[in-house]
Amino acid sequence: MAKQWGGRFESKTDALVDAFCESVSFDARLAPYDVRASIAHARMLGDRGIISKGDAKKIVAGLRAIGKLIASGGFEFDSGLEDVHTNIEAALVKRIGEAGKRLHTGRSRNDQIATDLRLWAREQIECIDVKLRALQVSLVSMAEKHMDVLLPGCTHLQHAQPVLLAHHLLAYFEMFGRDRERLGEVLARVDVLPLGAAALAGTPYPIDRRQVARELGFASVSANSMDAVSDRDFLVEFCAGASLVMMHLSRLCEELILWSTPEFGFIEIGDAFTTGSSIMPQKKNPDVAELVRGKTGRVYGALFSLLTLLKGLPLTYNRDLQEDKVGAFDASDTVQAALEVMTRMVAAVRVDDMRTMAATREGFMEATDLADYLAAAGVAFREAHGIVGRIVLYCTKEDKRLPDLKLEELQRFSPCFGEDVLGRLDAKSVASRRANIGGTAPRRVRTALRKAKRQLEI
Amino acid sequence: MAKQWGGRFESKTDALVDAFCESVSFDARLAPYDVRASIAHARMLGDRGIISKGDAKKIVAGLRAIGKLIASGGFEFDSGLEDVHTNIEAALVKRIGEAGKRLHTGRSRNDQIATDLRLWAREQIECIDVKLRALQVSLVSMAEKHMDVLLPGCTHLQHAQPVLLAHHLLAYFEMFGRDRERLGEVLARVDVLPLGAAALAGTPYPIDRRQVARELGFASVSANSMDAVSDRDFLVEFCAGASLVMMHLSRLCEELILWSTPEFGFIEIGDAFTTGSSIMPQKKNPDVAELVRGKTGRVYGALFSLLTLLKGLPLTYNRDLQEDKVGAFDASDTVQAALEVMTRMVAAVRVDDMRTMAATREGFMEATDLADYLAAAGVAFREAHGIVGRIVLYCTKEDKRLPDLKLEELQRFSPCFGEDVLGRLDAKSVASRRANIGGTAPRRVRTALRKAKRQLEI
Amino acid sequence: MAKQWGGRFESKTDALVDAFCESVSFDARLAPYDVRASIAHARMLGDRGIISKGDAKKIVAGLRAIGKLIASGGFEFDSGLEDVHTNIEAALVKRIGEAGKRLHTGRSRNDQIATDLRLWAREQIECIDVKLRALQVSLVSMAEKHMDVLLPGCTHLQHAQPVLLAHHLLAYFEMFGRDRERLGEVLARVDVLPLGAAALAGTPYPIDRRQVARELGFASVSANSMDAVSDRDFLVEFCAGASLVMMHLSRLCEELILWSTPEFGFIEIGDAFTTGSSIMPQKKNPDVAELVRGKTGRVYGALFSLLTLLKGLPLTYNRDLQEDKVGAFDASDTVQAALEVMTRMVAAVRVDDMRTMAATREGFMEATDLADYLAAAGVAFREAHGIVGRIVLYCTKEDKRLPDLKLEELQRFSPCFGEDVLGRLDAKSVASRRANIGGTAPRRVRTALRKAKRQLEI
Amino acid sequence: MAKQWGGRFESKTDALVDAFCESVSFDARLAPYDVRASIAHARMLGDRGIISKGDAKKIVAGLRAIGKLIASGGFEFDSGLEDVHTNIEAALVKRIGEAGKRLHTGRSRNDQIATDLRLWAREQIECIDVKLRALQVSLVSMAEKHMDVLLPGCTHLQHAQPVLLAHHLLAYFEMFGRDRERLGEVLARVDVLPLGAAALAGTPYPIDRRQVARELGFASVSANSMDAVSDRDFLVEFCAGASLVMMHLSRLCEELILWSTPEFGFIEIGDAFTTGSSIMPQKKNPDVAELVRGKTGRVYGALFSLLTLLKGLPLTYNRDLQEDKVGAFDASDTVQAALEVMTRMVAAVRVDDMRTMAATREGFMEATDLADYLAAAGVAFREAHGIVGRIVLYCTKEDKRLPDLKLEELQRFSPCFGEDVLGRLDAKSVASRRANIGGTAPRRVRTALRKAKRQLEI
Repeated sequence: MAKQWGGRFESKTDALVDAFCESVSFDARLAPYDVRASIAHARMLGDRGIISKGDAKKIVAGLRAIGKLIASGGFEFDSGLEDVHTNIEAALVKRIGEAGKRLHTGRSRNDQIATDLRLWAREQIECIDVKLRALQVSLVSMAEKHMDVLLPGCTHLQHAQPVLLAHHLLAYFEMFGRDRERLGEVLARVDVLPLGAAALAGTPYPIDRRQVARELGFASVSANSMDAVSDRDFLVEFCAGASLVMMHLSRLCEELILWSTPEFGFIEIGDAFTTGSSIMPQKKNPDVAELVRGKTGRVYGALFSLLTLLKGLPLTYNRDLQEDKVGAFDASDTVQAALEVMTRMVAAVRVDDMRTMAATREGFMEATDLADYLAAAGVAFREAHGIVGRIVLYCTKEDKRLPDLKLEELQRFSPCFGEDVLGRLDAKSVASRRANIGGTAPRRVRTALRKAKRQLEI
Repeated sequence: MAKQWGGRFESKTDALVDAFCESVSFDARLAPYDVRASIAHARMLGDRGIISKGDAKKIVAGLRAIGKLIASGGFEFDSGLEDVHTNIEAALVKRIGEAGKRLHTGRSRNDQIATDLRLWAREQIECIDVKLRALQVSLVSMAEKHMDVLLPGCTHLQHAQPVLLAHHLLAYFEMFGRDRERLGEVLARVDVLPLGAAALAGTPYPIDRRQVARELGFASVSANSMDAVSDRDFLVEFCAGASLVMMHLSRLCEELILWSTPEFGFIEIGDAFTTGSSIMPQKKNPDVAELVRGKTGRVYGALFSLLTLLKGLPLTYNRDLQEDKVGAFDASDTVQAALEVMTRMVAAVRVDDMRTMAATREGFMEATDLADYLAAAGVAFREAHGIVGRIVLYCTKEDKRLPDLKLEELQRFSPCFGEDVLGRLDAKSVASRRANIGGTAPRRVRTALRKAKRQLEI
Repeated sequence: MAKQWGGRFESKTDALVDAFCESVSFDARLAPYDVRASIAHARMLGDRGIISKGDAKKIVAGLRAIGKLIASGGFEFDSGLEDVHTNIEAALVKRIGEAGKRLHTGRSRNDQIATDLRLWAREQIECIDVKLRALQVSLVSMAEKHMDVLLPGCTHLQHAQPVLLAHHLLAYFEMFGRDRERLGEVLARVDVLPLGAAALAGTPYPIDRRQVARELGFASVSANSMDAVSDRDFLVEFCAGASLVMMHLSRLCEELILWSTPEFGFIEIGDAFTTGSSIMPQKKNPDVAELVRGKTGRVYGALFSLLTLLKGLPLTYNRDLQEDKVGAFDASDTVQAALEVMTRMVAAVRVDDMRTMAATREGFMEATDLADYLAAAGVAFREAHGIVGRIVLYCTKEDKRLPDLKLEELQRFSPCFGEDVLGRLDAKSVASRRANIGGTAPRRVRTALRKAKRQLEI
Repeated sequence: MAKQWGGRFESKTDALVDAFCESVSFDARLAPYDVRASIAHARMLGDRGIISKGDAKKIVAGLRAIGKLIASGGFEFDSGLEDVHTNIEAALVKRIGEAGKRLHTGRSRNDQIATDLRLWAREQIECIDVKLRALQVSLVSMAEKHMDVLLPGCTHLQHAQPVLLAHHLLAYFEMFGRDRERLGEVLARVDVLPLGAAALAGTPYPIDRRQVARELGFASVSANSMDAVSDRDFLVEFCAGASLVMMHLSRLCEELILWSTPEFGFIEIGDAFTTGSSIMPQKKNPDVAELVRGKTGRVYGALFSLLTLLKGLPLTYNRDLQEDKVGAFDASDTVQAALEVMTRMVAAVRVDDMRTMAATREGFMEATDLADYLAAAGVAFREAHGIVGRIVLYCTKEDKRLPDLKLEELQRFSPCFGEDVLGRLDAKSVASRRANIGGTAPRRVRTALRKAKRQLEI
């Protein structure tokens, strides 16, 4: 047995065409799912009397053996046999003879590949969820370890207001939390069995789709056969979710890279997570963070490949769809590798709290609180903002910091300043005052940490 | 009052810079949301004693008046005032004096714009849902009207098996149903109040974020202030959802365009939804469908812009984020316009059932059932497939169709063919046999239609 | 020897990090270019007395041997040795000892990889040019073979005016011609030697960059060392050029797919370039064309990955750049495979000129000439357009074609119609009248064909 | 007169459809080009006797008057008249009567819009070239002004080797130079006249395409009518070129943003090019640079929209093509605004050479030269690299810099160090030694500057 078709063809396909069209070089990866789905299908065919019980048993046994061979790496895929389905079916026929030829009853490669892909996607999402959680754990641990570290909170990469490093890290906890929620929702749309749609219109055989769904753990069966074989929404959604994960990682990496520069010097990434230069002996580069940032484009690319692919395709299955795999596989691998390595790297970050502390004294980050002080004293906030702006300009010229100013200097700008303003101008008290839900005050952040740990069940 | 800052600046911004940085030319569209959010904020400030009850009342009244002006189109935006927030605050101060300057207490434009955008996105998603439902209704009506129409179901744009037009249309019902589900989930992540995050770290004022959330109808308040002002995930998700809607529309349009060609001739699109040529008097072009297909790229572009924008941005607010709006606004407008016009166009499609019927006789679409017949007679499906392939080749050479074949001709290829095979080979009975869940058999499709109507509550 | 650095590191890199950062699994493909560049570098080092003549000779001999091993597939790459450069250098040292350690004098992996990539890109562009030309030859041959075939020229996929199939095919000749021109221009920007930029700032060794450029056949040397190591414009341009090639192919494929449908039936693609179905014995699918169309998204994706990657990267080399390869390699392979298979497939297309001829009679394609007739008779073109529009409407209702109309019927719409109009209304004469430069008249198309063949030197 | 067609239509287009399909709201921008092209067309029609000389004169005069009205902003576009072409033709007929109806002889909106777009694109490229040159001038001036400033040259954002600021800036000079070259090449492919292709097949009128090309300044006329009306390659190329410009700008902006942080402090951007915060009185943000970086995604989005749009479109004109404009227009505006504002901002950057100088002492940037010293003394470079790595590690632990080390300390790591090594370890001499073509040595950079000024003719 070679291809799964050919009766009506008078000449063979061109060898170049065979090489161009084959997919087994990349869809071999779906073999375990293909075997699992075929076992469920065969068992159902037997139960419904579509094939004999005996044949069903032989098929199931044969597929199990093949499954084991695949798992052990001992199965040899032949690219002459087009795709993963044909490879497995050929091996089955070779192994059990005639009975094997009955397996393909009541199905088509169109619904078969859709089923395999959904089994694959389900597993990927589950794996990514585990890895996202691990990164969250790593961030929470780092946050907890550095509850006393303040650093400049930035807008526009300019010092804005002092924040707890823990608060900063928990912003990422939120992002990855949304990623998990989002992918979890995609899962629900992945979790639908297409098998039984056959080529596109359903099958005349009295199959039992619910039985197959139950055995494969699908939550439901697809409602329309034409949609079932042409739908790749779930892969687009998966790649969109993966793109958001990478986007979040790229932001974290950007910050780790910045913080590792001699200029910032907020952190040092452990030797095990940096690399050197072939020419400059002093170099210790944050390569891992850079690579993760760079790989973001790769996952975006996969998303856009898929969207381009699907644009304007008429129903139902078109061979264009074969191109749905390489990008999605690569996106999944990339996200998972990035998450794993980031989780370990975060744990290897050493914080230089002398540098972060020193930094909080730069950039007049107490200015907002000075304006708020005036606002509390009855000055409209807009006015207060202007007054403090002028004080900052004065400091710039006099090369002073806000906490250096004497009361009389402040009062030259507004009579509303009183003695009590002087105690308010260090980074710690500035941070502590932001104690509303979501604020950076230590007690708030501690609450947020507790909540995070409850969510993570650690 | 001009800009909302300037105390520390010694020279004015360059006029070119003002023009380059202003956003009011596009964010004016957020004005109604900005007013609504400011009213809730002011009322809370008053209730919490952060500003006086009197000031709060004046502000609320002033904003309401401004809101009416905006709704009536009578508000004049001044691009010299940077953005929508500054325009409205300036108008407020002009109208009610000093009290107006107290409105910006305890907030920043960073959390304000995030709030406005979320109010906007919430409304857009609700509007799109209504329009998606309307298109679903249109498709279901068309399906019901043509329950008797069969057409060639295609794979690879080659005739595969006959399907009901209603079945084909319901495939799109499924796609748009997934779109609604997906956007509904995005809605839950949109529905979080960022106000209270202030610039990035929270605010020292004893604000009540839950009160504001309640008044604005938000389901929850954001958990981390730094995340709150830098997060644009919800816009990415919105654009990803919009991209999927457009992708589905592009597929439908492709088919309508194909079916309108003289070669297919399956449908005629009503005059009201086609246009002519400036040079060729005979032309009647499916422009609407083409434009919708073309606009798909536009929405994909918006998604990609946003993802590019966010890649590698350090926390928290960076001015890059200003560029989040134009694309998202355009994506929302494009999707909504496309849905509206498609809904009406679908209703204006006339089906030529003589052409569709004739087409079902082309392409040997009975071949699978012939193979299934042999399989039922005990031939392994793989063998049966080969036999029928050879029969098709024979027909091609003899210029016959499968239903034309006499029993003896069939038996030349396999002795398993019996008398009963002859009745099975018309399109209608082929379709009728596909009666499993999701199949194209008329009774299945009727069930699917009933279910669809229940879902749509029509 | 393991990595090319490590002196300042106290702990080893994490194994996971090694796996994450290695590039040899994909950059091994650059090995032949790396060897070639290293030979040129070593020879120059010797000539300039930077290393001894003897060492230079040993290095060159060693590298040549390694080069042969690589060419024969006998070189074993070790992913523990990071990248292709380290693998080759390690093999060299192993083979020739101490002298090998002098090869890396005056260069860095930063300028080395840039050099390798440019050598690679140069060769790819040359290969693609050859393949584009071959496809042009194939199109021209097909055009010549079918000089008598007319088919409906479409706008909006509606019949517009009859055109020669040869004219239609020559439109693609133009597109692929532009592709060649464009990539040829990219070549000029690829053809610049970066070697000598070293890590980023140049090298203190008295190297002779022009000698290396000459030996490697580069047209010039880079003018700024920082730009030299951080520039990947040439890869972006390459992928943009490849995207345009794929876009053109996708348009051609779309038409081949349409023309192969039973409805159009204009062509039949040879058995060797179509495939069948695992379930439907009658199917003969234009898979190759579909796959090429689908692969378009893949190349677009590579382009966008690269653009995303480079956005906002500070100078000079950042590890993100390692991610420039996978996409560019894949884009090049994809384009080349697609071109090859398309060239052969075009040659295997059989045209059904009965069907195309029949089709030219549908769709009132003579209408423009009828309007032009009136315009020539003094009616303003706008009026003439309206008159003919009404004639077409009349035909639609009476189920007539324009050539069927009698003079008196025409004269009911305008008295300007005379006897001579009747001979003008067949497709052939309609086409023949369009004899200006670029028009579809047979004599014009023959001229265009001659010009095309001159260009192709066939 | 309303639309340019309608004779064969029995019912009017739906109002919603009119709104959906109209393009005048954005293509009005092409009006000046449309008028210019129509004048050339009318004159040719008159010269060739296709219309009377008298009519041609009237048309030209009428179009000139309309052109003036458009230029003065006094022309009122009516969205009921579909597009810019219909608006202008309607105005013409209103103004000069019957003769106006003869203008559209021998052309179609399909070749007309292609002509307008090419005229537009030609002008845009010329404008962008002027603006790219201005930015280059600005960079060269800044470079010249700071010939003495050294700063850390980075790889991986870690200090690598000291470079001249001028050298760093000239890297951008190179990038923008390539942009000019590239867009100049696109110009050659834009510069082809499509007019005369008519709807798709050419026209039977004896038009003179070369005359029109000459009058409009096109270098050549299109060779194939079907390609002429369906080709949008030039817009894709234009957007790809624009994307590369933005990518380069985004890199420059990233660096300006980094250098403006308190941590780096290398530069201060003038008040006129920064903005403040509504809540934090101290803020001075590099908004312009951030916005430019953010707008990069917008231009990438336009490119991707276009590529998506064109994928899989059959020949020739399809209404999808109407969607080619909004993105291309926006890309052009965005690039031009960004270039203008950047040119002015670069001129307003103040360099803090105390901070850059101090920075060059951090990061062991003399390490490579130390290794090179050993290599010159006969140690193989690979060995030398390892020795210096260990010296750096020693310094890290002892908190020393390389120039602080005494000879005896160095000799503990290698006996090859001699007295003369001590003078080599300051940033200035490190930079000066890199004197090959493209290197950062001051004399090289001065040569590069001279060459740049020659190129810019300043």
